[in-house]
Amino acid sequence: MSAGAIIVWELLGTAALILLGNGVVANHVLRKNNGHNAGFLFINFGWAFAVFTGASIAAPSGAHLNPAVTLGLAIADKTKWADVPLYFIGQFAGAILGAVLCWAAYKLQFDDHPEPENTLGIFSTAPQIANTAWNLVTEIIGTFVLVAWILLSPVAAKASADGVPTFGNSALGYAGVSFVVLVIGTSLGGPTGYAINPARDLGPRIAYAFLLPIKNKANANWGYSWIPVVGPLVGGALAALVYLAVHNLT
Amino acid sequence: MSAGAIIVWELLGTAALILLGNGVVANHVLRKNNGHNAGFLFINFGWAFAVFTGASIAAPSGAHLNPAVTLGLAIADKTKWADVPLYFIGQFAGAILGAVLCWAAYKLQFDDHPEPENTLGIFSTAPQIANTAWNLVTEIIGTFVLVAWILLSPVAAKASADGVPTFGNSALGYAGVSFVVLVIGTSLGGPTGYAINPARDLGPRIAYAFLLPIKNKANANWGYSWIPVVGPLVGGALAALVYLAVHNLT
Amino acid sequence: MSAGAIIVWELLGTAALILLGNGVVANHVLRKNNGHNAGFLFINFGWAFAVFTGASIAAPSGAHLNPAVTLGLAIADKTKWADVPLYFIGQFAGAILGAVLCWAAYKLQFDDHPEPENTLGIFSTAPQIANTAWNLVTEIIGTFVLVAWILLSPVAAKASADGVPTFGNSALGYAGVSFVVLVIGTSLGGPTGYAINPARDLGPRIAYAFLLPIKNKANANWGYSWIPVVGPLVGGALAALVYLAVHNLT
Amino acid sequence: MSAGAIIVWELLGTAALILLGNGVVANHVLRKNNGHNAGFLFINFGWAFAVFTGASIAAPSGAHLNPAVTLGLAIADKTKWADVPLYFIGQFAGAILGAVLCWAAYKLQFDDHPEPENTLGIFSTAPQIANTAWNLVTEIIGTFVLVAWILLSPVAAKASADGVPTFGNSALGYAGVSFVVLVIGTSLGGPTGYAINPARDLGPRIAYAFLLPIKNKANANWGYSWIPVVGPLVGGALAALVYLAVHNLT
Repeated sequence: MSAGAIIVWELLGTAALILLGNGVVANHVLRKNNGHNAGFLFINFGWAFAVFTGASIAAPSGAHLNPAVTLGLAIADKTKWADVPLYFIGQFAGAILGAVLCWAAYKLQFDDHPEPENTLGIFSTAPQIANTAWNLVTEIIGTFVLVAWILLSPVAAKASADGVPTFGNSALGYAGVSFVVLVIGTSLGGPTGYAINPARDLGPRIAYAFLLPIKNKANANWGYSWIPVVGPLVGGALAALVYLAVHNLT
Repeated sequence: MSAGAIIVWELLGTAALILLGNGVVANHVLRKNNGHNAGFLFINFGWAFAVFTGASIAAPSGAHLNPAVTLGLAIADKTKWADVPLYFIGQFAGAILGAVLCWAAYKLQFDDHPEPENTLGIFSTAPQIANTAWNLVTEIIGTFVLVAWILLSPVAAKASADGVPTFGNSALGYAGVSFVVLVIGTSLGGPTGYAINPARDLGPRIAYAFLLPIKNKANANWGYSWIPVVGPLVGGALAALVYLAVHNLT
Repeated sequence: MSAGAIIVWELLGTAALILLGNGVVANHVLRKNNGHNAGFLFINFGWAFAVFTGASIAAPSGAHLNPAVTLGLAIADKTKWADVPLYFIGQFAGAILGAVLCWAAYKLQFDDHPEPENTLGIFSTAPQIANTAWNLVTEIIGTFVLVAWILLSPVAAKASADGVPTFGNSALGYAGVSFVVLVIGTSLGGPTGYAINPARDLGPRIAYAFLLPIKNKANANWGYSWIPVVGPLVGGALAALVYLAVHNLT
Repeated sequence: MSAGAIIVWELLGTAALILLGNGVVANHVLRKNNGHNAGFLFINFGWAFAVFTGASIAAPSGAHLNPAVTLGLAIADKTKWADVPLYFIGQFAGAILGAVLCWAAYKLQFDDHPEPENTLGIFSTAPQIANTAWNLVTEIIGTFVLVAWILLSPVAAKASADGVPTFGNSALGYAGVSFVVLVIGTSLGGPTGYAINPARDLGPRIAYAFLLPIKNKANANWGYSWIPVVGPLVGGALAALVYLAVHNLT
């Protein structure tokens, strides 16, 4: 697959993921919305099927949509290391684009919102209780589950004809990965908001900080911003190591 | 496929879609219902599987059920332009029939309702904050996601043997499109109620205004009515253009 | 398929359906339950996947589980008329067995319940607003959607090798029919509680009235009991007639 | 399949099951969580897709994840009796590991919790109304449904090439078993919290009692602990006997 195609498909898929994922939080947080205060299960379903939508669009590039997935697949020898930067470019560009589109869809609600300082949470995650080590642990465990499932489950993994690693390239795989993201949300999303994806967290944070004309917006909480980047990358790498160990063992 | 068959299948599928989609809102809005005030996730699930039901009935005609889908498929050269009016006829006729059936199922609840002026929302959408430009933007983005997914996702698109464009003609495809509609609802349905379908909005509005014997009903908000028609058509057309561009690119 | 096998499979499937369907209502209604007051979407999911469980068990007999389905399939010439009584016997026997098992699972909660007169609703449906004609209309429309979907949708219908009508005999079909029951619940379950199945309503009503040792129980509301029997049968028959008309037309 | 492989796959799958299943309860119970008080349907979805995740990882060993399933399959002659202890070892080791990982993900929330004595419910089940006989009945019925579905449903059961009993080894089967666990939760989870799995209940109870550094924790309610072990084993065995009877009959 050409470099351009990898970037285009990852960009399209990640833009859909973030538009819809940030969108469900906007719907819940901002007043004068049909989904205002609709709850955490509502948010979990939104993010889960945001993954379904984005992943089933980005099938040609393998539908990574997540640097932690790309890193795990590279360590597991299922993605070429030379392609890794292309995936990252598409993912971050798509995440920023998705955040901007989400803002446009909710522009009137952003303008109406009486507490502009609390809208960062629509775009990026924050911990319920801040603690560097344990917030990292939670993000590592959540991402580990995602990437381990992708690598270990026969439902998920399938190599395409031309060698591009297209796990989840059946409808079942796409539904499957969205079911896994649903349960990561319900079950591990309590403490840190389950970023489990560096592009999902950092891309919209950049859009919030530098692009979006939100009045009186707060700072982008840069002090926390590295945790949902490093934690997921560590979790994805650990999952690849477990995959390799199990693969050798059995 | 014959002209009559296109109309019949689109009519049946769209009638099921609107009966069930308007029905879930009636259940939520009208008192003396088991689902009274059951919430927005409840409404999202109702509309999502209304799409599943209607689309999996209308398989022979390609299960468009939506003029914005038909327009997008025509621009993408997947539906013949000569068939487009047949699709539109079936869709609008089905939408009106579905709205009438919904009224019949909830007839006692309509009669009991103390605020007859607020029942238009059962049939047609309205914005939380009225603004022509930004309401259009929200409807364009929501419909763009739907039609782009239909055109781009390998889960969705498949041509039938006789050339009729039957995207979503597997069970997976039908479940897939309902998952996409679920997430458009949770994630982009806050500001305008996600019409994303001119027939879904205008058909029931016509039924409400001219056919249904609801006492003291309000006017049908014709001033807004063109937005959920034009917005979805623009969104569907833009999705087709992106599809063609990506198709040429990769 | 032998007469005994039809009865056994329909009995097993319908018993699972009613155990799980009545069970979700018991969980919601009776205090000292983890699911007490969990809401109508909760009930809709319970009934939907009760159908999945029962239907995917009763595959060998075609998984009717519902006299209205059997009647519709017989009119549509997909089930032999001679087999119809066998289906009915299995369905009613299974429904009564399922209701008894549900009572056993919730025995302590029934004993604890301070209002024994309102437990009939766990077993059988009742209208929110009683009105013979319009309650019938609501039940007819709901069942029409179910049986029309089963007959018209290519996702649902498939004949087995030995001529037994096994619609829904793939996992997709079973998931599909449960999605359709989910949306009938959310969208048409408001006014009458969506019996849409004579065995589902009358079987547990018989168990309640004559078998279950619930203290101070109310009468079984026999005055209403014929509506969720006749309405579904009419709806199923109408769906078969529409199926035959569409089949001849296209 | 080698003894080591059975243990490894069951351990991985059960660890995922318990991490995610205990996790959703932790999210609901402990304050300062995004999912605090999110409700019983939220918990049901968490456990259901915890099963999906664990089962679709443990495909190579047949994805039992549950001693009651292993016992039922052995009685039904679908698992070798000599392998049964290997399954049990993997399942209990995985359950303990999953509980420890869940504690780590929620460590800050456990420390913050003002009522450390009520955290046992995150790990293990307890009855709403304690009564030995009827609590056993509820657990027997719930597990009976699970194991009967696995044995009887064509969606679930399929033997792999090398004789390992891999029911649920398609994506559909995995989704199917999670739908069944969803409805067991909504419909039979009211009185006793649906352990329906000795490893799911006893493993985390052991972790709670002996491994986890939770301050002021209560005792592990050993008086009740045998019921969610014996009840599920009885339910699984009964399901196997019914399976054998039906198999001979039809």
